[in-house]
Amino acid sequence: MRERVRRSRPVGWLLLALLGAALLGSRASRLYTPDWESLDSRPLPAWFDEAKFGVFVHWGVYSVPAWGSEWFWWHWQGEGRLRYQLFMRDNYPPGFTYADFGPKFTAHFFHPDEWAQLFLAAGAKYVVFTAKHHEGFTNWPSPVSWNWNSKDMGPHRDLVGELGEALRKRNIRYGLYHSLLEWFHPLYLLDKKNGFRTQHFVSSKTMPELLDLVNSYQPDLIWSDGEWECPDTYWNSTYFLSWLYNDSPVKDEVVVNDRWGRNCSCHHGGYYNCQDKFVPESLPDHKWEMCTSLDKWSWGYRRDLKVTDVLGESEIISELVQTVSLGGNYLLNVGPTKDGLIVPIFQERLLAVGRWLQVSGEAIYASKPWRVQIEKNETSVWYTSKGSVVYAIFLQWPENDSLYLKSPITTSTTKVTMLGIKGYLKWSRDLEEGMYIALPPLPLSELPVEFAWTVKLTGVK
Amino acid sequence: MRERVRRSRPVGWLLLALLGAALLGSRASRLYTPDWESLDSRPLPAWFDEAKFGVFVHWGVYSVPAWGSEWFWWHWQGEGRLRYQLFMRDNYPPGFTYADFGPKFTAHFFHPDEWAQLFLAAGAKYVVFTAKHHEGFTNWPSPVSWNWNSKDMGPHRDLVGELGEALRKRNIRYGLYHSLLEWFHPLYLLDKKNGFRTQHFVSSKTMPELLDLVNSYQPDLIWSDGEWECPDTYWNSTYFLSWLYNDSPVKDEVVVNDRWGRNCSCHHGGYYNCQDKFVPESLPDHKWEMCTSLDKWSWGYRRDLKVTDVLGESEIISELVQTVSLGGNYLLNVGPTKDGLIVPIFQERLLAVGRWLQVSGEAIYASKPWRVQIEKNETSVWYTSKGSVVYAIFLQWPENDSLYLKSPITTSTTKVTMLGIKGYLKWSRDLEEGMYIALPPLPLSELPVEFAWTVKLTGVK
Amino acid sequence: MRERVRRSRPVGWLLLALLGAALLGSRASRLYTPDWESLDSRPLPAWFDEAKFGVFVHWGVYSVPAWGSEWFWWHWQGEGRLRYQLFMRDNYPPGFTYADFGPKFTAHFFHPDEWAQLFLAAGAKYVVFTAKHHEGFTNWPSPVSWNWNSKDMGPHRDLVGELGEALRKRNIRYGLYHSLLEWFHPLYLLDKKNGFRTQHFVSSKTMPELLDLVNSYQPDLIWSDGEWECPDTYWNSTYFLSWLYNDSPVKDEVVVNDRWGRNCSCHHGGYYNCQDKFVPESLPDHKWEMCTSLDKWSWGYRRDLKVTDVLGESEIISELVQTVSLGGNYLLNVGPTKDGLIVPIFQERLLAVGRWLQVSGEAIYASKPWRVQIEKNETSVWYTSKGSVVYAIFLQWPENDSLYLKSPITTSTTKVTMLGIKGYLKWSRDLEEGMYIALPPLPLSELPVEFAWTVKLTGVK
Amino acid sequence: MRERVRRSRPVGWLLLALLGAALLGSRASRLYTPDWESLDSRPLPAWFDEAKFGVFVHWGVYSVPAWGSEWFWWHWQGEGRLRYQLFMRDNYPPGFTYADFGPKFTAHFFHPDEWAQLFLAAGAKYVVFTAKHHEGFTNWPSPVSWNWNSKDMGPHRDLVGELGEALRKRNIRYGLYHSLLEWFHPLYLLDKKNGFRTQHFVSSKTMPELLDLVNSYQPDLIWSDGEWECPDTYWNSTYFLSWLYNDSPVKDEVVVNDRWGRNCSCHHGGYYNCQDKFVPESLPDHKWEMCTSLDKWSWGYRRDLKVTDVLGESEIISELVQTVSLGGNYLLNVGPTKDGLIVPIFQERLLAVGRWLQVSGEAIYASKPWRVQIEKNETSVWYTSKGSVVYAIFLQWPENDSLYLKSPITTSTTKVTMLGIKGYLKWSRDLEEGMYIALPPLPLSELPVEFAWTVKLTGVK
Repeated sequence: MRERVRRSRPVGWLLLALLGAALLGSRASRLYTPDWESLDSRPLPAWFDEAKFGVFVHWGVYSVPAWGSEWFWWHWQGEGRLRYQLFMRDNYPPGFTYADFGPKFTAHFFHPDEWAQLFLAAGAKYVVFTAKHHEGFTNWPSPVSWNWNSKDMGPHRDLVGELGEALRKRNIRYGLYHSLLEWFHPLYLLDKKNGFRTQHFVSSKTMPELLDLVNSYQPDLIWSDGEWECPDTYWNSTYFLSWLYNDSPVKDEVVVNDRWGRNCSCHHGGYYNCQDKFVPESLPDHKWEMCTSLDKWSWGYRRDLKVTDVLGESEIISELVQTVSLGGNYLLNVGPTKDGLIVPIFQERLLAVGRWLQVSGEAIYASKPWRVQIEKNETSVWYTSKGSVVYAIFLQWPENDSLYLKSPITTSTTKVTMLGIKGYLKWSRDLEEGMYIALPPLPLSELPVEFAWTVKLTGVK
Repeated sequence: MRERVRRSRPVGWLLLALLGAALLGSRASRLYTPDWESLDSRPLPAWFDEAKFGVFVHWGVYSVPAWGSEWFWWHWQGEGRLRYQLFMRDNYPPGFTYADFGPKFTAHFFHPDEWAQLFLAAGAKYVVFTAKHHEGFTNWPSPVSWNWNSKDMGPHRDLVGELGEALRKRNIRYGLYHSLLEWFHPLYLLDKKNGFRTQHFVSSKTMPELLDLVNSYQPDLIWSDGEWECPDTYWNSTYFLSWLYNDSPVKDEVVVNDRWGRNCSCHHGGYYNCQDKFVPESLPDHKWEMCTSLDKWSWGYRRDLKVTDVLGESEIISELVQTVSLGGNYLLNVGPTKDGLIVPIFQERLLAVGRWLQVSGEAIYASKPWRVQIEKNETSVWYTSKGSVVYAIFLQWPENDSLYLKSPITTSTTKVTMLGIKGYLKWSRDLEEGMYIALPPLPLSELPVEFAWTVKLTGVK
Repeated sequence: MRERVRRSRPVGWLLLALLGAALLGSRASRLYTPDWESLDSRPLPAWFDEAKFGVFVHWGVYSVPAWGSEWFWWHWQGEGRLRYQLFMRDNYPPGFTYADFGPKFTAHFFHPDEWAQLFLAAGAKYVVFTAKHHEGFTNWPSPVSWNWNSKDMGPHRDLVGELGEALRKRNIRYGLYHSLLEWFHPLYLLDKKNGFRTQHFVSSKTMPELLDLVNSYQPDLIWSDGEWECPDTYWNSTYFLSWLYNDSPVKDEVVVNDRWGRNCSCHHGGYYNCQDKFVPESLPDHKWEMCTSLDKWSWGYRRDLKVTDVLGESEIISELVQTVSLGGNYLLNVGPTKDGLIVPIFQERLLAVGRWLQVSGEAIYASKPWRVQIEKNETSVWYTSKGSVVYAIFLQWPENDSLYLKSPITTSTTKVTMLGIKGYLKWSRDLEEGMYIALPPLPLSELPVEFAWTVKLTGVK
Repeated sequence: MRERVRRSRPVGWLLLALLGAALLGSRASRLYTPDWESLDSRPLPAWFDEAKFGVFVHWGVYSVPAWGSEWFWWHWQGEGRLRYQLFMRDNYPPGFTYADFGPKFTAHFFHPDEWAQLFLAAGAKYVVFTAKHHEGFTNWPSPVSWNWNSKDMGPHRDLVGELGEALRKRNIRYGLYHSLLEWFHPLYLLDKKNGFRTQHFVSSKTMPELLDLVNSYQPDLIWSDGEWECPDTYWNSTYFLSWLYNDSPVKDEVVVNDRWGRNCSCHHGGYYNCQDKFVPESLPDHKWEMCTSLDKWSWGYRRDLKVTDVLGESEIISELVQTVSLGGNYLLNVGPTKDGLIVPIFQERLLAVGRWLQVSGEAIYASKPWRVQIEKNETSVWYTSKGSVVYAIFLQWPENDSLYLKSPITTSTTKVTMLGIKGYLKWSRDLEEGMYIALPPLPLSELPVEFAWTVKLTGVK
């Protein structure tokens, strides 16, 4: 009982807030007004661009059937896909509903410190966790999602709170994924039926929960999703963001993405995600993030995952390098099991990234795009920079151990080293443009990394 | 999907209603204003007093543990009673919550027509069904109790709707029990913590559900409960009732009880229940109802029910007779199993009432209290009347087959019969007051009933 | 581990026994040889005929579906009845087997002392419990039924042992029901396929278990069943019985019935059951027992039991009286729930028998048939006797309170009383034959019983 | 029913066999007598030595808790380890037994063709599957393990049969693992208590099941285990083997290992396993097999497996190479999930072996040990041979791309190639002994394998 009383604390505040006062603000010195022009003018807090690499975690009731994808419920009952109907028919008693999966989401083996330790070892500077996906099940004791949350049912724990604590002990920034829509929430369906001219769902579910999340967990990042069916005016997004930027406890450091209403993505908000797994062709003029998943076909855990469905180590590192070179952050997803475990194949991939970053992180974290992003010769070379230092990351080892870089303009002070290797590398200017670098003929076992080596250039232009 | 959309229909209406317009009314010709003086002035629709006998049904998630009572959750986690904690420890895995019982509420054998047929055979003229008890689980697909209702979880059926249909086919009136409070609803706990100065719970849960129930199922009776912790002003009861009486689809026929706020019971509302199992000592001047349960210790089903815990047939009939004689209605409760079955001992008791009413119903249904209610001689005699006819129901058969009635004043046209027996009975005037009736010396096997026989007097004063 | 070792003690013994030595015997002074002539010559131990009334208990894995009857498995998968197939399809996941019911047989509320107390209050002098039914699940930790017994699975208790202990504390005799066949045991099916010319099943399952039951629990009665498909020579019945009568720890007191092989019933063994619910038309010359069930349609518990399916109190008492008058014992069955509870309707019936026996037991227990069994006049009258005392039990109360008995020949010392009533009753000789007894004109509430009253005659012939 | 009858076919045969006749033999021309001298003289069927690489599969009820190891039951209840007791207390209801795990062993996603395809891709020439582990649960419908087998409970499928069929379609040899002992079988415990002077367990369980397995599935290999507590005379091993070698349907091709009784391992039987994961120091004079598991700490699946618990690709290939060089076979274990899936980390490892064998299999399959097994210089070099061809497998790539081999004696016809690379390699004789081989300076991406390269020498001595 005590516990329940405690957790309803923020609700009072936020329900008041809903009535308008708090969102509209009352103090004189407001920085941001609830319109995109004002909101878009806010500078992105610096930590986000410096972080470069984050881990995304999709965990929810869909981790119980753990089959198909985290869109299980929708495919099954929204679309009525035959394959999903057969799956249910063959494995569960007649009449079994999605809600009946709830108690089976046990989280028995969920040790947030183990997750956090793994993400740390992977080199992640931030973690984004699904506080609530489109299914509506909240991974924290939301007071407006009674008996459909991780405290009342299934895990019987505050997953959002526990993970946050473990991450912060390790100085990892904490982001919360939040779906605006809930496929089957009756009030959402009602608003939808009304052509989104009513906002019953927003006022009694979305806003209270967003406010509760911010007040209770003080996230560094809000990763909004599920916005696509309605305009931001339905979601009250600009009001929420102005409160977030002006008055919330995280107003100085919080970062958000761009999914706040139909046609909003890629145009408004904080950094841009655009579509899932989106990668721009050339350097964008707005901070962006590429999110992708270790499982190529699902964000949530699938029991029948095959190794061929999993991104390979070199694919991941390629994407990371490309993304950072193009000014983006790379957010790599894992889906834990219903028990709360991250399976070994995912551990292996994350640790591989971590080992690579151990050597190459200097070229990634807090780097900036250089004046050139990519060169393609014998191998792809991606550039990053930090101050006057330029990093060239080449994905394949060139034949003859000779790396050609076209873009750097060498000077008399040009020096070249290789991350993970002691000593300077020899180089020579090409007659026309660019330079040749003599790579050390290392035996396989002494290579600092197995893929995507980095040469560091100083004194170049 | 279609189904979900359909059921959200009333919600739109009711959520608008919540904003005040509908409750305050807009038409000119309002009969009732939202205050007790006005509301209490409404005449009780006639059907209720004529019905006399109803069946009460308590069915919910508490029918799954089916142990202790329907207050299981509260005793376990509200009060922390040791006995309940041990029960959970010994029978369920660690961390099992009350919500985890939900999927086990199967209702596999719920055939509403069988229930209705049984209640008809019991002679019930109305049935009151727990649409929602203090646990908050709704036995209909409430749009504001998502995934904590009988459609999304457990039975996967609209129990309120199905039962109503079966009853109405048999012309049995349908009442819905509705608990205002929900022990553990986070918003209720929040309002409570705020000293009930906020109404988050009322506006987002109680009122929408009451309105939904009325609009969707058009109940003949609303049996309100769970009011005791707060004044009616918190519950917005008078607003609800004025809408119910003025504008609702059941405004002409609906009956309510008296549990609409602290200190309201026995003073305001429709008919009075006062406390559970309350019986007045003398004839009250306000219509009342005695509710009681076949299981002396619980309203919900208990698996470990013992036959000694069950009201005996003569106890039931005594209470029924007493209640009707004192102007009340008698509402007798059964608790079905989680499977949806009414166990044989309850069937037996209900059918016994039905057999008795088959013979004696003339003295019960649509009767009025007489000028005298009870006489105690060798046996208790309870009086009822209908027009000029007087019924005297005597609980024990007198020795010598001679029944003395003190109160009737005989006349020259006085005639006496016995319900269930053909022909007139002989009688004689006592010298001082009253009359002696010669009962027929019937062998056991020819008695019309086994207990509580009725003599019908005409031409008496 | 310790426990497991302990319980395998008897097995060593019995498996040796199987090899023949013990069964064939080695001591000189054998009373009974393994043939029916010898075995049938054994006098029935006296306690059985004196007991008259026993309670039968059917409890097993069939109590989990608790639907149809205790033949659930056979109807479902042996015969493939559609109704059973639909039941499984509608209520369980695809592929669910009968064995999967095992863990759901919890016996959570099984308190053997409560059962025993109820049976004592019912007036039972013996109880017969299903140690193993045709399904093969053993209600004790049989060493040859590993993981298909009540200790390894489901209750995790020795049900046979616990119930026995509780009964013996109350001096109630303990009988064990044992099915020779097991519908689906692979070795039984093998023997069957071999035309019962092989005995794999008998040697590795039936005999070890019978011997284990006798040695471990020392039952007073073995209620054999499931014999019908094979001759007694397949079952080795005569060998078993000769061991039981000569050498077993219960050789002096044990009683058995007559189901020991095809065509054996009603001809060989101890007392006769003949068919289920069999009642002879006139006094048999061999001790017999009528077994019947409170649920007219099943011996095992059915969740959907209706009160109309349950034997009424007067039906039960009629049958008991008739049976005892005809020299039989009456064995009345109840089926407990999977939780281990005997539902109230069964409690009520058993207690009704107990109340009747409280008054009338003198005419039942240890009685003998009289020279006449029945007279039919206005009412049925059944006779029993004890020494020179004659008891006449009349089922209906005669009109005019005058009971005519045709058979007793009165003498000068003839005296008549009524069980449960003080004082002598007046009587008179009929002119031709028989006597008239003037029954006391008691009001309903002072009758000693409600049905089947007993007059006790002394000094008659 | 039909099905059950069918599967009991072999039993008749084998139970007869048990009586002695078949095991002792009756035909004149017996090759092998039931003693080790005779049995050990049987030549090992050639396929086994040629196979070199097999996959071991541990799957059973222990895959349900999937925690600790496949010895879960023993650690929990045999030894009473606290850690296991806490695991049960924290995750299951009180009284939960190991048998209660049975129905949860669903095998929902078991597609034997997918397994077989994976094993084929891994380069396995044989697969050994746990038909029955120490827990006694049989993965086929054993007629003497009723309701404790994969047909009656859990999967409801004949796992042994289905996997066998899928393997044989792909010409993979099929071995069956069979545990002689069963930790908790009551009859085994009885025999144990009797100091193994009785053989109740052997005659009613072990032998019937071994015979049933051989007759029903005609395995190419019997991988015996669980022998250690008793001498082979208790197990009747020599009788079984003489039948297997003389009369069984697999007498010509079947291979067995050496675990047939206490002190038997490493001394008698077919090939030798000696202890688990045993590797000899020098070339043994008897065919042997090294069995090991991808999960370093368990043979059965563990849900909480960490990537650091899994053998790395180079560890596996090192062990394989070493084993084959020393004349052994390498049997690599995976533990599938209760759903029937082989998790991606295991897929990845197996496929890595397969890719390596694709290139290097020529040096492995059907190879023979050479006169030298190992040389250690800069890198370990393991030799194998095939006729006059010698293969030198070096684990690390030498600096300067120059490989020194000490043992081969070059001749004028000596030629050197590298598996996976076209063309001859240059080499030169060392002045003292051995030869230098000039390895091609391939870029990383063109190496045929990433670890353990093979040079093939012809014309050497």
